[in-house]
Amino acid sequence: MKISQNNIIRQPDYHIDDVFTQRWSPRSFLDKKIPDEDLYSVFEAARWAPSAFNEQPWRFIIARTDEERELFYRFISEFNLTWCKKAPVLALIISHTKRNEEENRSHSFDAGAAWGFLALQATLKGLVTHPMTGFDFTKARELLSIPNDYAIQALVAIGYQGDKAALPENLQNREMPNQRRPLSESIFSGKFGNTILK
Amino acid sequence: MKISQNNIIRQPDYHIDDVFTQRWSPRSFLDKKIPDEDLYSVFEAARWAPSAFNEQPWRFIIARTDEERELFYRFISEFNLTWCKKAPVLALIISHTKRNEEENRSHSFDAGAAWGFLALQATLKGLVTHPMTGFDFTKARELLSIPNDYAIQALVAIGYQGDKAALPENLQNREMPNQRRPLSESIFSGKFGNTILK
Repeated sequence: MKISQNNIIRQPDYHIDDVFTQRWSPRSFLDKKIPDEDLYSVFEAARWAPSAFNEQPWRFIIARTDEERELFYRFISEFNLTWCKKAPVLALIISHTKRNEEENRSHSFDAGAAWGFLALQATLKGLVTHPMTGFDFTKARELLSIPNDYAIQALVAIGYQGDKAALPENLQNREMPNQRRPLSESIFSGKFGNTILK
Repeated sequence: MKISQNNIIRQPDYHIDDVFTQRWSPRSFLDKKIPDEDLYSVFEAARWAPSAFNEQPWRFIIARTDEERELFYRFISEFNLTWCKKAPVLALIISHTKRNEEENRSHSFDAGAAWGFLALQATLKGLVTHPMTGFDFTKARELLSIPNDYAIQALVAIGYQGDKAALPENLQNREMPNQRRPLSESIFSGKFGNTILK
């Protein structure tokens, strides 16, 4: 049984390493910088993710100075701005859609694996991550000069977890790890729809 | 410095947990079954991956009986069949493309995060995974009755690592962990193309 920082129980049905249930996506961030070594560590983990033909389609555009963050704020939704401004680092995850001039049909999936690695290494370094898709993708592409053969995947706030009470009131009730549907609804045996677990 | 099972060095530039460099994609599998508890553990880790709106778009179709594996062999490429037949489990990763009847633009990315979690938990259980896209997606959809609102992402062989010498000769030279481009080519500061690391 795993107890999160907020005493919300995440109970896996089968044994897994604690890191998987300890990782969650808080919105309250401390006003505290991330040492470069720890920040690069989370991207280093992403670097070693697997990808089709070892293409490594992922790229990360990081904002960590006031000027860079201000630029990012210009494409983030009003709702997400109510909490993500305290995060010391914002990282936009993008992926190269081409491989040798042809469409790489695994670019999003592979970038997702890299993001998974990143999120877990962040947890291991005592950091928290909160991924968002609530932002203006077109504006982000323009403002950050993202070429057309790169797809925008997600924006991640990275930092240290802050106190729930520091959040706007409407967000305090949502500041807890979320749950998952039962594993039995995600695994099929042999064919789509054949459930195997009770 | 990390030494893989085959003495190929994977040297991270920044400190990361060993699991990230220890995970790689061998092709030689032992003829050895996976206990259910360990098999479900790898999917349990995937279960706790983050996803947009906690939609959990991933599904896994598993082949682990002779009959199920034979069905899967019918859509796998000739090349991949030369090595993957020894793997005790094949898992097709698919993702639901819709969320409340609308397109979920994060389904591939989120399924990729779940796959990343799965691969790492497998490593922690002493298992190896080898993802493939070399198979007939259309045939897979037909044979496994996959609905049109699910996208096929990748097929993963899961099992215990075997001896390199057990592979067909042309694959023995490739049986080693691959490397990665430098992190400096994947991280940009503030805008696309602004390198920050040497």
